[in-house]
Amino acid sequence: MIVALSGGVGGAKLARGLYLTAHPLTVIVNTADDFEHLGLAICPDLDSVMYALADLSDPERGWGVRGESWGSLEMLSRYGAPDWFQLGDRDLATHLLRTQGLRQGQSLTGVTAQLCRALGLAARLLPMSDDPVRTQVRTPTGWMDFQVYFVKERCKPAVKAIRFLGVEKAKATPQTLQAIANARLIVLCPSNPLVSVDPILSVPGMRDALKTASAPVIAVSPLIQGRAIKGPTVEMLHGLDIEPSPVAVAGRYADVLDGFVLDALDRALHGQIAALGLEVLVMDTLMKTDEHKRRLAEAIVNEWL
Amino acid sequence: MIVALSGGVGGAKLARGLYLTAHPLTVIVNTADDFEHLGLAICPDLDSVMYALADLSDPERGWGVRGESWGSLEMLSRYGAPDWFQLGDRDLATHLLRTQGLRQGQSLTGVTAQLCRALGLAARLLPMSDDPVRTQVRTPTGWMDFQVYFVKERCKPAVKAIRFLGVEKAKATPQTLQAIANARLIVLCPSNPLVSVDPILSVPGMRDALKTASAPVIAVSPLIQGRAIKGPTVEMLHGLDIEPSPVAVAGRYADVLDGFVLDALDRALHGQIAALGLEVLVMDTLMKTDEHKRRLAEAIVNEWL
Repeated sequence: MIVALSGGVGGAKLARGLYLTAHPLTVIVNTADDFEHLGLAICPDLDSVMYALADLSDPERGWGVRGESWGSLEMLSRYGAPDWFQLGDRDLATHLLRTQGLRQGQSLTGVTAQLCRALGLAARLLPMSDDPVRTQVRTPTGWMDFQVYFVKERCKPAVKAIRFLGVEKAKATPQTLQAIANARLIVLCPSNPLVSVDPILSVPGMRDALKTASAPVIAVSPLIQGRAIKGPTVEMLHGLDIEPSPVAVAGRYADVLDGFVLDALDRALHGQIAALGLEVLVMDTLMKTDEHKRRLAEAIVNEWL
Repeated sequence: MIVALSGGVGGAKLARGLYLTAHPLTVIVNTADDFEHLGLAICPDLDSVMYALADLSDPERGWGVRGESWGSLEMLSRYGAPDWFQLGDRDLATHLLRTQGLRQGQSLTGVTAQLCRALGLAARLLPMSDDPVRTQVRTPTGWMDFQVYFVKERCKPAVKAIRFLGVEKAKATPQTLQAIANARLIVLCPSNPLVSVDPILSVPGMRDALKTASAPVIAVSPLIQGRAIKGPTVEMLHGLDIEPSPVAVAGRYADVLDGFVLDALDRALHGQIAALGLEVLVMDTLMKTDEHKRRLAEAIVNEWL
């Protein structure tokens, strides 16, 4: 069994690649981006991964559901309700069912399983915790909820610090711990290290579970030639005085890692990553099509499974 | 000030007509059709009246919002969620905001006022009560929630009895009682007498308020030549062994009424209505266009205001 740890869009691409290899797959997903909006429980990363695996993602926009419409949002605007979060009509169905399940007392793990089953997914999606964790970023105007920074403010404010509210009290679920213990390969997807992977690793017990897992733990670089494919990873690393380099990223996880996938364009860094004690795989990591995703996933599987 | 009592679609047409006369208008709306669906608080009659006054109604379908789309419903179906209630994307925005307001502790009266203000309505919409009242109909298979009978079962089961759960404990709001006391004309719209007007009149204190109001109270026949324009009025009257005639309808409200509007095609019944002690206005009551609605409303205003 393969276990992947993933944030949203970037991680979801590799998660889809792993899914396409047809190996049994469990994806442990960041939930520190979750928020409540108009009374709805919204889990952007769980949804991105779920839509990616179900082949429902919109390839142009890079998020949300393909063929989406915006009737609800249009009417919300008409009512003068907050419309900075792009609530698609189809996406709304997901939020409605999740919110209803949670209000009826189901766990996020349980509701997520139900949604995935309904979409016919053969993979398992697990939130990193059933307890609420909320990422905030410190900007020149003070602490800001992540979705406000990310969507409403379009990642423009400089980020000087990051915190995960509630993470000390969050419990890793039995499902995630068991998945990690039973895994034969564990993959940290190419997600934002600061706000996607870090929250997962910050859940008490998670880092230890990875260290003591019998499976190899490998990470895929989220950077190619000092740039992220999408999102504010580089700007955020700069803000925290971290060099936007795969070496710095690998260094953040080195305590739990056995291997690292470096993009072919960064092959010059091979030695520095190896010096961290990691086995290095060098190959194309850009995933534009399903074929790219599957090829990268298969290379990882061939190397480490 | 004009006060109208209304159910959904049929009543909403006359409410729109009254709105178009530009007299200050308060509409007291049936809420016994309300229900919770997918965790949303849905008030079909309030919405029908609100959309009608805001000129958002779909004239073809006869309910819901014009130019509606169905992306959410499509995705809900895909999830295997109940899709018998036609949740439009724009309509959903209304339910979301109402549900959020109620969960935050607002009254239905307060939330409704907010939605109407946001749409720029000059009229006031008041739910008949802020307490939940739920219509059920007794069918050959037992008691059934109204929306299940009305939408899911398409009014097919025979109705042998009707009850309004919770109505004995429901309180008339200060706003409705004050509106009735201050009114200069009170109009019972041509809504289904059994499941739209009856619930309003069954709220404790409402019938007395109408009897003691200084304004004339008049009703518009919901039947033309023994037929309802829309909905199961005639079938329901038959099921309860009530003759589907304007005379029977007028008889149900005669204790609160001063006048009655009879369709021109039913002019032969003039004497029987007058015999109930009511002043009778005979005219075309079919309201296909805004012009029809305004003309009927103006005739009522000219006669009684």
